[in-house]
Amino acid sequence: MTKELGIALLGLGNVGAGVVKLLEDNAAAITARLGARPVVRAIAVATAGKKKRLVEVDPALLSTDLASTVARADVDIVCELIGGEQEARVAVLQAIAAGKHVVTANKALLATHGEEIFAAAEARGVDVYYEAAVCGGIPVIRVLREGLASDRVEWFYGIVNGTSNYILSEMAAHGRAFADVLKEAQQLGYAEADPTLDVSGGDAAHKLAILAMLCFGTTVDAAAIPKDGIDALDPIDFRYAAQFGFVIKPIVLGRDHGGRIELRVHPAMIPDHWMLADVPGAKNALYVHSYALGPSMYYGAGAGMMPTAMSVVSDVIEIARNIAANAGGDRVQRHRSLERKPALPVADVRSRYYLRFSVEDRPGVLGRLTTVLGEHQVSIRQVVQDVPDAGAGESGPVSVVVLTHEAREGDVRAAIDVIAKSVVAPTRVIRVMGPP
Amino acid sequence: MTKELGIALLGLGNVGAGVVKLLEDNAAAITARLGARPVVRAIAVATAGKKKRLVEVDPALLSTDLASTVARADVDIVCELIGGEQEARVAVLQAIAAGKHVVTANKALLATHGEEIFAAAEARGVDVYYEAAVCGGIPVIRVLREGLASDRVEWFYGIVNGTSNYILSEMAAHGRAFADVLKEAQQLGYAEADPTLDVSGGDAAHKLAILAMLCFGTTVDAAAIPKDGIDALDPIDFRYAAQFGFVIKPIVLGRDHGGRIELRVHPAMIPDHWMLADVPGAKNALYVHSYALGPSMYYGAGAGMMPTAMSVVSDVIEIARNIAANAGGDRVQRHRSLERKPALPVADVRSRYYLRFSVEDRPGVLGRLTTVLGEHQVSIRQVVQDVPDAGAGESGPVSVVVLTHEAREGDVRAAIDVIAKSVVAPTRVIRVMGPP
Repeated sequence: MTKELGIALLGLGNVGAGVVKLLEDNAAAITARLGARPVVRAIAVATAGKKKRLVEVDPALLSTDLASTVARADVDIVCELIGGEQEARVAVLQAIAAGKHVVTANKALLATHGEEIFAAAEARGVDVYYEAAVCGGIPVIRVLREGLASDRVEWFYGIVNGTSNYILSEMAAHGRAFADVLKEAQQLGYAEADPTLDVSGGDAAHKLAILAMLCFGTTVDAAAIPKDGIDALDPIDFRYAAQFGFVIKPIVLGRDHGGRIELRVHPAMIPDHWMLADVPGAKNALYVHSYALGPSMYYGAGAGMMPTAMSVVSDVIEIARNIAANAGGDRVQRHRSLERKPALPVADVRSRYYLRFSVEDRPGVLGRLTTVLGEHQVSIRQVVQDVPDAGAGESGPVSVVVLTHEAREGDVRAAIDVIAKSVVAPTRVIRVMGPP
Repeated sequence: MTKELGIALLGLGNVGAGVVKLLEDNAAAITARLGARPVVRAIAVATAGKKKRLVEVDPALLSTDLASTVARADVDIVCELIGGEQEARVAVLQAIAAGKHVVTANKALLATHGEEIFAAAEARGVDVYYEAAVCGGIPVIRVLREGLASDRVEWFYGIVNGTSNYILSEMAAHGRAFADVLKEAQQLGYAEADPTLDVSGGDAAHKLAILAMLCFGTTVDAAAIPKDGIDALDPIDFRYAAQFGFVIKPIVLGRDHGGRIELRVHPAMIPDHWMLADVPGAKNALYVHSYALGPSMYYGAGAGMMPTAMSVVSDVIEIARNIAANAGGDRVQRHRSLERKPALPVADVRSRYYLRFSVEDRPGVLGRLTTVLGEHQVSIRQVVQDVPDAGAGESGPVSVVVLTHEAREGDVRAAIDVIAKSVVAPTRVIRVMGPP
């Protein structure tokens, strides 16, 4: 008789329904790989009634009691798929206390309470897996934790928020305004009713904090990661980007400066012939540069019901193998050496920059801009003044676009502060990044 | 006191030297992750004398006796890095018999003797890891085995031979002839003195056999995989490819047709805007399409001293974790359900095709070609006749290039056989592939 593996699902939304469906669809193969049959024993939901759900489940499995669901004697693994921070934190800690292994897709939870959760899991000798928390179905957590276990990650770029990537892709392809694309994305279900976490960079910062933990062995205060949203981008910036051979992508960056850790979240201009520029629509990718391997890239679906469920169930399978091999708790060791490394201050970031100044079209203006930049050690690579502001008359303000060589952000900001007196609208600053 | 982990290296060539270097360079981080200090206890080499080596090692470690090296009591893990089939097979089986875990980078060995080796390892309760055997430093084995453990791979395309990719990239970029680029690649060390295994597709077929085993649970006779080399490609084909918006890449393909397994190795035309077209020089990539995740891609260095060593040492780390958790032998279970699934005959392959006919420039020739193709159910998408054969005079033979819709390969071959009477040189057949 095949052994059974008891699973409790917390949440039966998009991802929870995907887990139920995938366990059914690939049941034979998964059972063969596990050496045990995975059985969903309980599903915690917000309302247990006869609600219309994405998959059909036995109503007897449903419960609104999180605490008793995670502690059931017939459950080996708890999959936390409710999202949010507080309720999920309590449920996960209760599951760990009850000796259950945990799989979670919750980046906000791990970015904010990861230390507490991993410490509790280590103390209790259980596993916490979270492949679905970053880049959805792309197995980047396994790649970094095991595939590159012998290597040292020097830096990485990622496109980790599919909603932002979708919006910027649409803005670039059709010259549309941010608000217009966002509205459509909400109607299509690609963006949340409250899109703040996606478009402000908050969701990306959570994922970046988790990646930094894995790559650099540091804990991170996700709220303190410098971030720019994508909502300030204007169609004119996409036109300039195309003119310079760039595309604008929502980027997270992590870099280890030998102790000080540089982390940032913002839209960036990257070369249009670079592989990361080809990541379309709502897809995600992680481009990693490590000491021994050099550059490598991992691409795929960063969200969606089945891709995310795939990562959750692959985590379940790995935990089940650990259980079968009596190796529970082994994985937790990888976080043992976490420490809080100092962050590189934004002022010390070095980057190339796209600066778009809105100025009156008067003699001497260009000279004044370039002089101020030079006085602040910001060296100019290219200046363009040939695309008039949309709707501006002949005597109205014009855009002056400057591409800089690599400069220190503190110097760039200081120069822009001085220039502020000479411009008619706030200066647009977009970082320019690319393969070295 | 930190526990030690005994390692024996078989071979101290490029990869062996890389392993020694990486263990030294990342010693502190690796020891922290392992919870044990990896110590190279013995190195088997062909000649033990004072030969110039790529890294400095204690001469006392060197031995020419493979059998006693793998059986040393102070060795836990044997890394087989000598390549080739027979000597490596014997050494690996001896290591397994002595109760040692094995890491190997040897695709020829696994493609040819994998069943025997995995069975022996399972019987003895030891692990055999082989991340470096396919795509060098890209952790595709872990991705397929663990990252996509809950998923079902439907098909994959790969660029798995860096030498071929380098040669085709050079031919495309500079319009150079195959023999010319190959010679230069040999001088630069990018190609072997005997390049047969690389340019004939033999090396790629070995890797494809391993990928098919992982993705489709089938054993494969690597020698029976249909393959075309890259040596028959002509600069004129690259010019046509560019004209059609294609690039020519050395591709391996695997597809599960619900029981019958399609495997092939050949150069293919793929859309130049597709991500796989951007894989430059000697890099490798694997593009996977699976049921739940959909498309995903894994890109990086497919060869080289440090990337390959990175995969070997990451395998060592994972085995060491298994040892620490008393989970040795767990990984071997994944191969338990292998069976020999039937291969899809080449005649039943369905693809689009690029057909280049060399014909006399006479009235009626084009009509005859298209009629024969039509009679064989080969439907034409596009015909071009505007690039004269290099060096041909006005009355000499001309090239007629046909792009077909999807057709059955058996039908295409039958049509070409009929057309053979009407052409002045063998017809060039290149498959056209792309994202669905």
